[in-house]
Amino acid sequence: MRKFAAEKSKNLLAHRKLLAGGLQHPTASSSTLVSSHSHHNLLLPYSSLLLRFLTTTAANPSAPSESMSSDYSSTPVKIDSINPKVLECEYAVRGEIVNLAQKLQEDLKVNPDSHPFDEIIYCNIGNPQSLGQQPITFFREVLALCDHPAILDKGETQGIFSADSIERAFQILDQIPGRATGAYSHSQGIKGLRDTICAGIEARDGFPADPNDIFLTDGASPAVHMMMQLLIRSKNDGILCPIPQYPLYSASIALHGGSLVPYYLDEATGWGLEVSDVKKQLETARSKGIDVRALVVINPGNPTGQVLAESNQQQIVDFCKKEGLVLLADEVYQENVYVPDKHFHSFKKVARSMGYGEKDISLVSFQSVSKGYYGECGKRGGYMEVTGFALEIREQMYKLASVNLCSNISGQILASLVMSPPKVGDESYESYTAERDAILSSLASRAKTLEDALNSLEGVTCNRAEGAMYLFPRITLPNKAIEAAKAVKTAPDAFYARRLLNATGVVVVPGSGFGQVPGTWHFRCTILPQEDRIPAIVSRLTEFHKAFMNEYRD
Amino acid sequence: MRKFAAEKSKNLLAHRKLLAGGLQHPTASSSTLVSSHSHHNLLLPYSSLLLRFLTTTAANPSAPSESMSSDYSSTPVKIDSINPKVLECEYAVRGEIVNLAQKLQEDLKVNPDSHPFDEIIYCNIGNPQSLGQQPITFFREVLALCDHPAILDKGETQGIFSADSIERAFQILDQIPGRATGAYSHSQGIKGLRDTICAGIEARDGFPADPNDIFLTDGASPAVHMMMQLLIRSKNDGILCPIPQYPLYSASIALHGGSLVPYYLDEATGWGLEVSDVKKQLETARSKGIDVRALVVINPGNPTGQVLAESNQQQIVDFCKKEGLVLLADEVYQENVYVPDKHFHSFKKVARSMGYGEKDISLVSFQSVSKGYYGECGKRGGYMEVTGFALEIREQMYKLASVNLCSNISGQILASLVMSPPKVGDESYESYTAERDAILSSLASRAKTLEDALNSLEGVTCNRAEGAMYLFPRITLPNKAIEAAKAVKTAPDAFYARRLLNATGVVVVPGSGFGQVPGTWHFRCTILPQEDRIPAIVSRLTEFHKAFMNEYRD
Repeated sequence: MRKFAAEKSKNLLAHRKLLAGGLQHPTASSSTLVSSHSHHNLLLPYSSLLLRFLTTTAANPSAPSESMSSDYSSTPVKIDSINPKVLECEYAVRGEIVNLAQKLQEDLKVNPDSHPFDEIIYCNIGNPQSLGQQPITFFREVLALCDHPAILDKGETQGIFSADSIERAFQILDQIPGRATGAYSHSQGIKGLRDTICAGIEARDGFPADPNDIFLTDGASPAVHMMMQLLIRSKNDGILCPIPQYPLYSASIALHGGSLVPYYLDEATGWGLEVSDVKKQLETARSKGIDVRALVVINPGNPTGQVLAESNQQQIVDFCKKEGLVLLADEVYQENVYVPDKHFHSFKKVARSMGYGEKDISLVSFQSVSKGYYGECGKRGGYMEVTGFALEIREQMYKLASVNLCSNISGQILASLVMSPPKVGDESYESYTAERDAILSSLASRAKTLEDALNSLEGVTCNRAEGAMYLFPRITLPNKAIEAAKAVKTAPDAFYARRLLNATGVVVVPGSGFGQVPGTWHFRCTILPQEDRIPAIVSRLTEFHKAFMNEYRD
Repeated sequence: MRKFAAEKSKNLLAHRKLLAGGLQHPTASSSTLVSSHSHHNLLLPYSSLLLRFLTTTAANPSAPSESMSSDYSSTPVKIDSINPKVLECEYAVRGEIVNLAQKLQEDLKVNPDSHPFDEIIYCNIGNPQSLGQQPITFFREVLALCDHPAILDKGETQGIFSADSIERAFQILDQIPGRATGAYSHSQGIKGLRDTICAGIEARDGFPADPNDIFLTDGASPAVHMMMQLLIRSKNDGILCPIPQYPLYSASIALHGGSLVPYYLDEATGWGLEVSDVKKQLETARSKGIDVRALVVINPGNPTGQVLAESNQQQIVDFCKKEGLVLLADEVYQENVYVPDKHFHSFKKVARSMGYGEKDISLVSFQSVSKGYYGECGKRGGYMEVTGFALEIREQMYKLASVNLCSNISGQILASLVMSPPKVGDESYESYTAERDAILSSLASRAKTLEDALNSLEGVTCNRAEGAMYLFPRITLPNKAIEAAKAVKTAPDAFYARRLLNATGVVVVPGSGFGQVPGTWHFRCTILPQEDRIPAIVSRLTEFHKAFMNEYRD
């Protein structure tokens, strides 16, 4: 690994030089970040800001260690001849802390005593089944039957599958031309599945939904990319994003060459979204010549966990309508609400409740099978519901979808299932609700336990996770720790996360990967380890934090 | 539909105006096509060439017909304010002929006598299972068991699944951390599955393969996009593509803002690839200031069906090495070879056989579960094998993959299965080989029957389909037909295809969707309808062609 580490550090340095330099960097300003926040009064190149608030290169830990770049001198592709937008883009959720974790995991395999812990606990990513969450039985039964319809009418099948999963599989197969689950579908997804999804949206919202508005996708990420690809023409196009944000947004904006226009969520009011602040940021960006095209809202919030109040959502809808912004609503955590005083409302429901129709506001809602109580990340299913776009724009969206033919059919089927789970009277209904409720109530309890534990630590404050799958505690680091981080050229929160990992095996993502008010430090920690592991995590974290503070206390 | 049609035609006109105009079009020249072909001696804006060789807008036939764009005047996104690269990109395989087919299919549902045929036969796309091809049983058994591992140890399972599918499912699950098929995997794909794929590549080629070189993807298309995203910085970056080509390449180059540098396959020599012609095109492009980054080779060819001779491949490898080009080898039809005198050789095997190693040539091989004898298009599985790139470039590829987290796990599993099917002695071996051989020999027979039928038509010549899934006959159209096409502002081959569809229900893609020597006309027709349908297709096609020629003969 030594060679690899040396290489990586060299690359990292070169990468930083590229990002910071500008002169040699063909499009150093091709992606910019515009802000009127007191700490960001200038139009900053996005790349240089990234150095401040995103962690750095996401190296491939498993790349062959003998591959020194000097040996590749006769191959044509050099680091300074690739698309600079690719260099610029960052995705901290699978960044260098995770690479270190994978290295430590390899160490443990070779020598279980090589580190002061037995195992790595991945709290870096919302990936519930990787931490032991079991899939919902009914969903998997239907998927298995659709994968292998030949067993549907065998006697044995009735012994090992529920009656309603068999019935559902028949229904779904009947919606697929020729029952061909191995055929490319319509590029927006199988029409019958879109009908089912619309029925689910209607039941949720109480307003009509149109299957022609649904684009089924391989998870929510490709849907987000598609909207960015459609809206962004150049660095003069801006997308308003919350800070902190899920770094898919910053990565996608960078890859499409646009400008991220940040608005800050207010930590002091439970990560409140102040429309007046959004408006200030919009005006600043416009004064710099940025054409702001859309507003991203993540509700429930990632990494922040807040659930927006309906009145707040109404303000946001009015703001987008008034300012001519597309509202990009990331609603993938719609089933993950843990507190009795908050409820999820889709932005479409809110807009329709206000009397705004199809032609009043352009709204895209993203949903995924990866989150909720189902957590089926590996299935890569999801959809976007697209309303308020003229026909000729819709045609362009369809064309973009058609270039990639269609999303995977299992993911499509699963997206229809999560929007139409078993109902009262179905054979699976009781076991389904038991599985679902056990997961959701356990997530709520884990969130509370971790939140309390974090709040009991010196210099740590943590807003409650009203929803989603994360806590995003703020850590007030002693100056000595900040100096120590500087000495090793690392952001202080990345320094803390790295020390935490090395001491406990717990993997979290530094706040700099999501963006934060400059001078503040956070980390994102999922609430996903199984309940019986939480006490150990709490005690390891507490012990580490005490020792860290004792080492660095000013 | 009338309103929709009017709208569509208006949009189409506006779109054409945009593409042809240039002045109002912010980046009319952002994607260019460079050619030294006698008919193309100028550096042409890619968009204007598209008008000549690609069919036009791929409208969404199911978009709400009442959505007139004028009603959307208060929504922010207008056709002239979206990314012009999106407007420019075209994908004829799901273009307007297919939209018309879907409309006719709806007509038939309402009134079975509305057209002079009973059904639409989709020969436009390589989608075998949509035309009745059955999936390989072993593959589907394993997928079903991996979807629902809870049934693995039930007694009933042994009654309805083969022993080796149960064993294989256990093996695969053991390769997945926590057996979690619902978890995000490593962003390059599950390591154990990459190991299996590498063993398959080694068995195929006789040269080592490294799991760190494998990137599992949702079909081959996202892998192609990833390479284009990496390599293309601006319109000054060129990608050499065969003409005719599979329009994913032109679409992806347009979306990434690069220049397609065409080289022509020689129809007279069975779609031969002349390296001297490629070199001429390269030099012309370079003389125009284009930095040509890569050469795309599709082998077996799509839409052309030729299988390259090994000696030809050696020339191509030497050419890429000498000229410093990345070789992008589309090898998704590697299992689809139908003639005894031709064999598939991977470019990696050819390069390694010539003594070129990892550091001599940059080579990417694309493979997919959608093609071959398996034809599992809906599963969206595939991989690329990436060799000859320095570590820091590989890190950037990994980062791009990580932004989308991972490809779907069922597709990953299936990609491993197609590279490691049942072996002699396995319970499924005999049924597996019987299913595989029946499909492949039937495809060969269908290709031959259709080829002969086409060659018997007046003015039609058709090279044999040595491989892949298509025939690409050339049609010499009478001047009267060309004039009639001009009168309705349609390319002559699109005019022919539309007439064919309206008369017979058979859907083919006009040659203009793939590119062709100007002044020649073709269409692409798959060999995928089931064997019992072929006689009817042949007689319908023959009858139509005779009537068409009688109508327009000069």
